[in-house]
This record gives sequence, C-alpha cells and structure tokens, in this order.
Amino acid sequence: MMRMGEENIKIGESKLRKLVEEIFQKYGLSEEEASIVTDTLVVANLRGVDTHGVVLVDKYVQRLQAGSLNPQPNIKKTVDIGAVAMVDGDNGLGQLIGHKAMQLAVEKAKVHGVGVVAINNSNHFGTAAYFSMLAAAEGCIGIAASNASPRLAPWGGITPTYGNNPWSVAVPAEPFPIVLDIANSVVAFSKILTARAKGESVPEEWALDVNGRKTTDAHLAEILLPFGGHKGYGIAFMIEVLTSILSNASIGKDVLKYDNLQAGQNIGHFFLALDISKFASKEEFNERLEFFIKQIRESELAENTVKIYLPGEIEFENSVNRKQDGITLPKKVVETLLAYSKNY
Amino acid sequence: MMRMGEENIKIGESKLRKLVEEIFQKYGLSEEEASIVTDTLVVANLRGVDTHGVVLVDKYVQRLQAGSLNPQPNIKKTVDIGAVAMVDGDNGLGQLIGHKAMQLAVEKAKVHGVGVVAINNSNHFGTAAYFSMLAAAEGCIGIAASNASPRLAPWGGITPTYGNNPWSVAVPAEPFPIVLDIANSVVAFSKILTARAKGESVPEEWALDVNGRKTTDAHLAEILLPFGGHKGYGIAFMIEVLTSILSNASIGKDVLKYDNLQAGQNIGHFFLALDISKFASKEEFNERLEFFIKQIRESELAENTVKIYLPGEIEFENSVNRKQDGITLPKKVVETLLAYSKNY
Repeated sequence: MMRMGEENIKIGESKLRKLVEEIFQKYGLSEEEASIVTDTLVVANLRGVDTHGVVLVDKYVQRLQAGSLNPQPNIKKTVDIGAVAMVDGDNGLGQLIGHKAMQLAVEKAKVHGVGVVAINNSNHFGTAAYFSMLAAAEGCIGIAASNASPRLAPWGGITPTYGNNPWSVAVPAEPFPIVLDIANSVVAFSKILTARAKGESVPEEWALDVNGRKTTDAHLAEILLPFGGHKGYGIAFMIEVLTSILSNASIGKDVLKYDNLQAGQNIGHFFLALDISKFASKEEFNERLEFFIKQIRESELAENTVKIYLPGEIEFENSVNRKQDGITLPKKVVETLLAYSKNY
Repeated sequence: MMRMGEENIKIGESKLRKLVEEIFQKYGLSEEEASIVTDTLVVANLRGVDTHGVVLVDKYVQRLQAGSLNPQPNIKKTVDIGAVAMVDGDNGLGQLIGHKAMQLAVEKAKVHGVGVVAINNSNHFGTAAYFSMLAAAEGCIGIAASNASPRLAPWGGITPTYGNNPWSVAVPAEPFPIVLDIANSVVAFSKILTARAKGESVPEEWALDVNGRKTTDAHLAEILLPFGGHKGYGIAFMIEVLTSILSNASIGKDVLKYDNLQAGQNIGHFFLALDISKFASKEEFNERLEFFIKQIRESELAENTVKIYLPGEIEFENSVNRKQDGITLPKKVVETLLAYSKNY
C-alpha cells in the first residue's frame, strides 16, 4: 500500500496497539474484543502484510458508524455435532468471529482429533494466516479460508464471479510456524495499480482487459487471472463451496464489498484444526519436519537466488525486525487513526 | 501418453476391466481387491487421464513379481481416536490402501461430521480424484492427497526435493461431482517430452535447466517449476506435511520412484471426508451449489473461449463418451496387458 514519495511515520508496536484498541472500544467493542481485533491487524503489520493491517481500521469504523457492522455480536453455534460446528457470526467483525471459531475448532480437535467449523453471517476477516496460526500455536495444523467479494472470473470467462478467496495452512515449528497464506489470483490488484503509477507494463499472465483479451498494458489490465490458470480457478471454486455453500453465507457474485457501508457482507469462513499429538509425539513430528526442512535448505540455488525461504519465513523475519524497530506506516493512515481516537 | 503416429487400439470398458482384473488375480490379489485396483485404473482411462490408467499395470506387476509390492497386505489401523485414524498400508498397492482409508474417513465423517485418515507404508496410488470422488459418492466433501518421489525444487532452488504431491477435492453434485485434481508443477513433465518430440520451444515458466537458469529450449528444460511460483511450492510443502511428516512415511528426497523394483516406496497419503448433511440438507446444499454454478455459467466469455467448464466437467464428458465408444489405448499397452494375462 505504500507508494514512493508518500510520507511515512514509524510507530512502535505497543503504541499502535493501544491506539487501535482505544478506537474499537470507543466504537462499541468490549476491552477484550477490541484487543483481539487489534491483535489480528497489528500482527499483519508486523509480518509485513500492510494491506491487511491497521489500514483497515478506517473502513471498519465507517461501517460501525453506519450500523452495517455489529460491534457486540451474539456469535453462536447453530450446529454442534461431534467434531463439527456451524457458527452464526451475527454480522460482527470477521476477526472476532474467526478468533472464536478457530478456538472452537481447536477445542474439538483436542477431543476428536480434528475439528471443523463453518461460519456464516461474518465479514472481512483480514489475514487468513492469523487464524491458521492460532491453531498452530496450540499444536495443531490449522486451515483457514474465507470467501470474499467478486474479483476473479471463472477460467475462460471475464465476469468477476467469486472472490480471491484467501486461504492459509499453518504448521507448528520452531522458531516460527510454517505458514502458507495465499489468495488465488496471480497477483493482487495492488500490483497492477503500482505498475500503472510507475508507467510500467505488466506480464500478460496477470490480467485480461475488460473485453477478455490478453494485455500487457497496466492501464487496460482489469480482470485478474487465477494463478495456475484452471488450477487457481478450481481452488477458488472449492473454497467457495467450503465457505459459503456449506454454511449458507452469501455466494459468489452476491458478496458485498467490505467497504460497502450499507449492509453486512454475510461472508462465510471455514476453519479446520488437526491435533498432531493424535498421530505423533511433538518430538517425533518436529524431528521429521526438521529433516524435511534440512532437505529444502540444502537445495542448490537457482540463478539470482541467495536463499531458499520456507513458507512464512519472510513474514517471520519482518516480525522480528518490526517488533524491534517499529512499524512504518503512511502518515495518512496514522493520522486517520489519531483522528478516530480523539474525535468521537 | 499417446504420441502421433503411434498405433492405437480401441477396447470396451468391460473387456478392459476383465483383462486387468485377471492379471491382478494372477499376481496374488483376491478377486475383490483385484476389482478395486482395476476400477481405479479404468476410471482414470474413462476420465481421459490415461497417464494414470491401465498403462500403470506394467510397472505394478513388475513390482509384484519382484516382491517389492505386497499383493495381500494386512492394512491396519495404528491409531484410532475419535474422528481420526492412522493406517499402515503394509506395502500394498496404493489404490487398495487408499480405497480402504477413504472408506474409513467416510465412516468417521458419518459419526463425527468429519473424518481424517493419515496413511504410511503405501505406494503410488494413481489418481487422487478417485478417492475424493469415493467420498463425494457418499454425500461428503472429499480431500485426498499423496506425497510422491522427488520432482520439484523448492522455490528459488534447483534440486528436486519433494514430489509433485497430487491432491484432489471432490464435491457431490448432479449429474457429475465437481472435482479438482491437480499436481503442483505448472505442467506435467510429459508436456516437455511432447514439445521435444515436436521440436517446439516451451514457455520459460515451465521449467529451469539443470543449472537453474530460465529456458525456453524443451531439450534443456529439466527442473519443473511449481505453479504460481512460491504458491505451488507452499502448497506442495503443506501436502508433504499432511502426508509423510504426519504419518512417518518416507519424506521428500527419500521417496523411491514407483518404478523402482527394489523396495516399497513407503508413500504417505492424507484423506479427509466432511459430511455435508451435518451442515445442510441435501436439497439446501444442492440449491446453493446450483446457484453458484449458474453464476459461473453466466460469465461473459474471454477471447477464444467457447464454454466455461466446471472443475471435473471435461473428465465427466470423457467418461460419458468412452463408456459408450470404448477406450483408445496405444497398441503396446494392450499387448502388454494381454501378455501378462496369458503368460504367468
């Protein structure tokens, strides 16, 4: 989200947390719930995923003000059978609902070995990785997915029909969890905006023009293409099934954008936790994972590569650095937060 | 697998089944088990996935002859806790072990809502879709994955360190299940072989040369690249975790190729079944899925596209046609089968 030439401000983690917690409390969340939502956003900034960090507070607060987000949702189970549950999010913040739902999935995993929770009546939940990592912190393999407002066309088509449907898998490891956290387009639309701003062209694999033709002109590139062509399309399709179709959330084209102030999104999520301890001791699992990681690290390097990263490693390095040095944010973002915290 | 100029033979489904069943019975499988393994292979041919069809019989029989595949495995649960289980495949055919393991996952799903089965001591299991579709036929969303002998390098590297790690998700639908069935390279190596045979170049996204440099020369293209770059790498990594690391199967570089006649592969699989009926009635689920499919079908078409396919639809159309018209196979493949059925 940061553009060249934009003025930036560096802010310490705890100061940022305090500021954002205050805002959410002012807009009706309890102290505990404000702290949870804040954690999901600040953790995204720490990990370097600034598009899903505190920059989102603005739109969330606008929606709380407009009454299209419920600050005190009655999040409740509508199904609770053995290892599975369905949860109605009562139009609360997706971060809050996701946090509760993954806790429930982990509880079920501790008892049954695996837990699955499907959620409806939720909203934009930020980064999927936050929730999969909650499970990993409890010794589980965690999977988190969400549908989203329409962004991608079916493979072979040009009408945005389903969301970029982010998903994440996290595996407990030391000193950091292994985390896959992806959406299903080749690139995020923000990369096309950056190319436009810089006057650069884009690879024709990124997007089609509005008439469904291939293009390398960043200004014409509009319809994001799925990664791996039919593969990314198929994955996004399956995530739509696991999120909205399973739980009766809004489906595909019907999902409202998160910056729509008029109504709740009725987003669907899918959470899974798998308790590793049912299959292997912590020591056995770690030993095998380390064995695989060693194989990965020992690969010969491709041209122009200096290091092979594990999934989630760059984000871990960002966290270490930003916890120490502070988080650099566009001045405008910080000013918006300050304004919300003062003027209520 | 079929090359231009190669001589082909058309054979009817039931005749092909009978032939293959006979072979596996001759090489030590029970009638029932021979029929299961045959079904997995013939279904792959029917769906047009000839690389994973009866062409595999040759290597499997060679391994049965060599004693590196157990024709009568004692497939047993080594963990059975609530909704999860671990299964030791006793070095049997992966198809047989996978069939039992997915049945177990479905049984658990019917009771607990979800069932997860991790498998070790297995071998090459053919198409992942066969097993996910078993779950879909029982009203479950099915997930099937396997590790495999090393084929892909980590993102940024050039040493084949883990397999193409195929995975599949299937969802019950009429008149055919929606099926995602993919591996994690941009293309299968057979496409590079085809380009070599035709004297064509390949896109530089397909593979690196043995020195880790980009290349469009099909003869130099050796190291398959993951689809979506770091995304496909991350997905394959997670499948390695879910298959071999969870269950203590052979890991990454240690997995023997399936055409190695010396020893069992100790392949790991991962199966999940999620019982839809715990979340919605069949009618509700179908209605929502149809609603989404209608949105997909109504997308405007991209340039040079005549129809938008659902995941698994092309394979379904192939099945309809081949059940009626017979299955076209290279003459050499049929001759090998006939030889095995006669000379024992």
